[in-house]
Amino acid sequence: MPERPTIRAAILGASGYTGGELVRLLSEHPAVEIAFLGARSAAGRPLAESQPHLSSLGDRTLEPIETGAIAERADVALLALPHGTSAEVAPPLLDAGVRVIDLAGDFRLDAAAYPEWYGWEHPAPAWLEKAVYGLPELFGDQITGAELVANPGCYPTGVSIALAPLLEAGLVDAAGILVDGKTGLSGAGRGASESSSFTATEDSVRPYRFPAHQHTPEMERSLALATGQLPSVLFVPHLVPTVRGVVTTAYARLRVDASSTSLTEVLVDRYAGAPFVRVLPPGGMVDSKRVRGTNVVEVQAVADARTGCAVVVTAVDNLVKGAAGQAIQNLNLMTGLEESAGLPTLGVYP
Amino acid sequence: MPERPTIRAAILGASGYTGGELVRLLSEHPAVEIAFLGARSAAGRPLAESQPHLSSLGDRTLEPIETGAIAERADVALLALPHGTSAEVAPPLLDAGVRVIDLAGDFRLDAAAYPEWYGWEHPAPAWLEKAVYGLPELFGDQITGAELVANPGCYPTGVSIALAPLLEAGLVDAAGILVDGKTGLSGAGRGASESSSFTATEDSVRPYRFPAHQHTPEMERSLALATGQLPSVLFVPHLVPTVRGVVTTAYARLRVDASSTSLTEVLVDRYAGAPFVRVLPPGGMVDSKRVRGTNVVEVQAVADARTGCAVVVTAVDNLVKGAAGQAIQNLNLMTGLEESAGLPTLGVYP
Amino acid sequence: MPERPTIRAAILGASGYTGGELVRLLSEHPAVEIAFLGARSAAGRPLAESQPHLSSLGDRTLEPIETGAIAERADVALLALPHGTSAEVAPPLLDAGVRVIDLAGDFRLDAAAYPEWYGWEHPAPAWLEKAVYGLPELFGDQITGAELVANPGCYPTGVSIALAPLLEAGLVDAAGILVDGKTGLSGAGRGASESSSFTATEDSVRPYRFPAHQHTPEMERSLALATGQLPSVLFVPHLVPTVRGVVTTAYARLRVDASSTSLTEVLVDRYAGAPFVRVLPPGGMVDSKRVRGTNVVEVQAVADARTGCAVVVTAVDNLVKGAAGQAIQNLNLMTGLEESAGLPTLGVYP
Amino acid sequence: MPERPTIRAAILGASGYTGGELVRLLSEHPAVEIAFLGARSAAGRPLAESQPHLSSLGDRTLEPIETGAIAERADVALLALPHGTSAEVAPPLLDAGVRVIDLAGDFRLDAAAYPEWYGWEHPAPAWLEKAVYGLPELFGDQITGAELVANPGCYPTGVSIALAPLLEAGLVDAAGILVDGKTGLSGAGRGASESSSFTATEDSVRPYRFPAHQHTPEMERSLALATGQLPSVLFVPHLVPTVRGVVTTAYARLRVDASSTSLTEVLVDRYAGAPFVRVLPPGGMVDSKRVRGTNVVEVQAVADARTGCAVVVTAVDNLVKGAAGQAIQNLNLMTGLEESAGLPTLGVYP
Repeated sequence: MPERPTIRAAILGASGYTGGELVRLLSEHPAVEIAFLGARSAAGRPLAESQPHLSSLGDRTLEPIETGAIAERADVALLALPHGTSAEVAPPLLDAGVRVIDLAGDFRLDAAAYPEWYGWEHPAPAWLEKAVYGLPELFGDQITGAELVANPGCYPTGVSIALAPLLEAGLVDAAGILVDGKTGLSGAGRGASESSSFTATEDSVRPYRFPAHQHTPEMERSLALATGQLPSVLFVPHLVPTVRGVVTTAYARLRVDASSTSLTEVLVDRYAGAPFVRVLPPGGMVDSKRVRGTNVVEVQAVADARTGCAVVVTAVDNLVKGAAGQAIQNLNLMTGLEESAGLPTLGVYP
Repeated sequence: MPERPTIRAAILGASGYTGGELVRLLSEHPAVEIAFLGARSAAGRPLAESQPHLSSLGDRTLEPIETGAIAERADVALLALPHGTSAEVAPPLLDAGVRVIDLAGDFRLDAAAYPEWYGWEHPAPAWLEKAVYGLPELFGDQITGAELVANPGCYPTGVSIALAPLLEAGLVDAAGILVDGKTGLSGAGRGASESSSFTATEDSVRPYRFPAHQHTPEMERSLALATGQLPSVLFVPHLVPTVRGVVTTAYARLRVDASSTSLTEVLVDRYAGAPFVRVLPPGGMVDSKRVRGTNVVEVQAVADARTGCAVVVTAVDNLVKGAAGQAIQNLNLMTGLEESAGLPTLGVYP
Repeated sequence: MPERPTIRAAILGASGYTGGELVRLLSEHPAVEIAFLGARSAAGRPLAESQPHLSSLGDRTLEPIETGAIAERADVALLALPHGTSAEVAPPLLDAGVRVIDLAGDFRLDAAAYPEWYGWEHPAPAWLEKAVYGLPELFGDQITGAELVANPGCYPTGVSIALAPLLEAGLVDAAGILVDGKTGLSGAGRGASESSSFTATEDSVRPYRFPAHQHTPEMERSLALATGQLPSVLFVPHLVPTVRGVVTTAYARLRVDASSTSLTEVLVDRYAGAPFVRVLPPGGMVDSKRVRGTNVVEVQAVADARTGCAVVVTAVDNLVKGAAGQAIQNLNLMTGLEESAGLPTLGVYP
Repeated sequence: MPERPTIRAAILGASGYTGGELVRLLSEHPAVEIAFLGARSAAGRPLAESQPHLSSLGDRTLEPIETGAIAERADVALLALPHGTSAEVAPPLLDAGVRVIDLAGDFRLDAAAYPEWYGWEHPAPAWLEKAVYGLPELFGDQITGAELVANPGCYPTGVSIALAPLLEAGLVDAAGILVDGKTGLSGAGRGASESSSFTATEDSVRPYRFPAHQHTPEMERSLALATGQLPSVLFVPHLVPTVRGVVTTAYARLRVDASSTSLTEVLVDRYAGAPFVRVLPPGGMVDSKRVRGTNVVEVQAVADARTGCAVVVTAVDNLVKGAAGQAIQNLNLMTGLEESAGLPTLGVYP
């Protein structure tokens, strides 16, 4: 059997938390080579300076983000850059023939939504139209062969996986969906602020940035693309004192008299072949700690006959299935590798 | 001016977390004397053995819970006992003329609800009918002079304060209310279990016991008593890695085209004279850490015109406003003391 | 009996963590009035903006630090300012007749030590010579009537209380003392940095700034002042994921064949009248959580005959006994109030 | 090249935390097959019941610990059993030809030490004499080919690696060594107790079980075996609010005028070929979080000329390098595999 060539990957933004996870996971990937490590302010510095926990990888230096050098050395670029930066960095790479997976929010919405939810006009609407929303469990077919993949946000990942099958099956209403989110602090990145300090965060629970969080239209769009329906979502995220882990609790009105068992069966059937979806049996309760370090999403569905509501709870590691791991899952699909290659499913617990 | 006589209080269940808070707060209360410290399994042992952080109080011994001794020495008994125990302990005390504040759930619901939500028939339905629901912000008039007060649960405290004024004002629907709760671990008491260990809890977010949590009917009943409407509530609580602090995020459909400002004004007006309700201005976000150690409830109201929903978020310290502090607030009202006597409003932050 | 006049206090640096604790504690002090709230960058802003947990105190505005205004309105100024700032701010206040308690390190060492340990020449050596080291348990007599008190650092507080009596009694060697410290993050103040973020701190234990930590010479000097001996101390502090709480584990060579019981007795005798020292019986283990929110120091002494060492462990709340509470204890002594006035001894636990 | 046969491993005690780590790591080991999963009280139950984070491994059932079945199916048994149990379980396995790695303390000391430090007479002194102390960095030669390996305790692992080279080089005194330890809660295992609850542990730092901790004689023996000297160690461990991670701060008197640089060089030279020892350059500070999930030990050495002391700080993940990972490292050496096979070196950070 002829050996499959190794995929050459560029990681841009390698000095951040998500960049660090990309390096950690790809350096153990059986069919991918890290061909380029790019950074902006940390360019020219050793990788181990920003990522000392990866110092076993030896002497690697972060390079400036230059299209030419990347195009020469990489087949695919993974962009772990701030919102607003990817939309500038991706187009020249794409024009130079590099396939791009963007982990920011820059290619996840329709152009018209950016001014309202992100506060800027999209600079590359033509590429935006070609972008595929990279949630493999729902859009796997489109991801294979895509040039540009928009890696989903951490919250929309769980919510879309939880609700799409129930909407498709006509079990719940598309209108009036509520999503209550809980996240740890790593999603905020490395930037230091008083509110993300240990002192302000220990023993603190706080809602934030609602009802204007930019993952709101992303959930609506993802569910619409997957189901053809037009859902309305109100999303209220909360900060809790954890590092990794995003839990979403989605509430939707039942359209039929369904039991927890029947909701669960719909999910089990829908994700029968999905390597990273773990649907809990009725009565099981998700726990973000169990998926830590993995690309797994835990899902639990409950029907409350008394109030006529479905509740679907999910948990992901926001840095893996909610960011770096899902990006690698997309890379695998884009390049014809096995979907689960290089992606952990065994949690680092406790 | 004649000096007001000191109120003599009995604390039953003084070896638990809530009992410890009652001792801490009452020992600094200007008009209450701790006349009796009762416990069950810890009876006969020094207080400082179960509550070493209170050892500055000197040598006090926990006594067995004997009606006669309590009736002789105390005017009011505060019952920090497990669910199901209070319903047995309270009646003889009441018959002996001791006024009772029950911090368990044993006098919060109608008799008919106990088999479904607590799993047992209520043993003292006649006393149950006389019990007053002890949420001073809504039922202050009835608490004054009550013989038996049912101190509210931590979650219903916030939810009732948040929603009652909006229901009264006709701003939101009574049907279809959703409450998403987040709690720390101290609410589970001292009992040791693997799931409440530090190891299982750090970096973990988990829903629990839904949709059957016993605070569900308590919220419905409290809101019904306060407003005359018949609300339906679906309640989903979550454990997060904190010790103190309960945050409730309540979602209700707007009946009119209201703004966050107008919701906020209704709450500000309703609680103008309430010493412990802190309504945040529009845009403010509650933080459970800010109310730690206090009897304050923080409230924040948001109207989302896009989806037609009101979101009201509250935070309390579950051991103070959610338990021991609220019990003392009730004691103050029952005995004609100033409502806020002996109750802290300045948070222990950070 | 004539009423004692209220002491008028100025709090300078009221927007920080220690400043917040000063405000919280003094606003409930029976004989002190907060006459002036000063800040530097936050001057002109409402107190509740930097200290929203204190918003129950109502509308108070932070003022610029102006000697004239302070001297007019305050008897005593408490300086919760950064190291290096107090040495500039204190002298004009003292010259204007305001007594000063400095919570920074600016008046704790001999002038000659500042260049090595703090990196600057002391700007007010004359005042430095008059400063009294404000550890009431060891230097109470000198504090009464002092014009300028240097409030001790959090680590030296515990270490001095632990070791001074054993050195005085000739039980341990002054040479070769080792102190291993563990601290939470609140000691670092509000300043935001990546290393003090929740994300970097959860599940992390790290030594820091040793062997050059500036509390090293402070321990040596404090023990020398108290005992007349010349101790040598090696001090290694560690950051652990807590907010409040400093634990010091001090190791000293036994000079005689002493037991844990005899070490404990020496400490109990020495601190018989001290309202805030809690010496644990042999076998008891200190716990920083038990002293949270209080001015108490827990002390535990162990003699290990096998290796000929004494181990004395202490715990304080670094923001109370390690800073704001101890400052108020000093204020009480300086102004003839009862030493324990306004100072909590009952821990906020759990 | 002939293919090397797969090593068949039995994991006994697979329902505990350490057992879970053994399963996680060995299921991804390139040359080991998990041939037997044994448990005591959980025998007959599915693995995923006690280890739900490993449910991706599919349906595996825990079996009772029966020598015959184990001997038939496994080459090596890893015993993650409580202290005192291994000493009963290991001998029949050894007699049946199964090689044993014991992760408890049952084969780490001389027989004479068990009554004092563990409280029981050793039941298998003949096997105890044959046991090899399984610290590969110091005793690798003896481990190769050993029948019975005593896997070291978490604290002695770091301390032995830190101090052995400095003792060998004559740089520090063997007498008067002090070790101050800090550990997270996972070392206490799954057993539930009030003191290991989240509520009692958050914001708490506490020493425990000193000076009688059973790792004390293990450190002395390990250093003696490695150096031929007779060290005396006083060991004081502390609980801090982390899950994984053990930091040891070892203090020893300098025998010569050494600098931090020269101490560091000795360590760098000594561990030049060791795949899991990361000696930090002078000025670097260890951080337990950086080694989380890995088999790495971080080491930092400081010479304090002022007091004549060496301080060597180490950090390990107590469940990996301090338990399961080191056991696999031993298994690799015992069976002729590459020492680092199947063992992670890239930390799961943050």
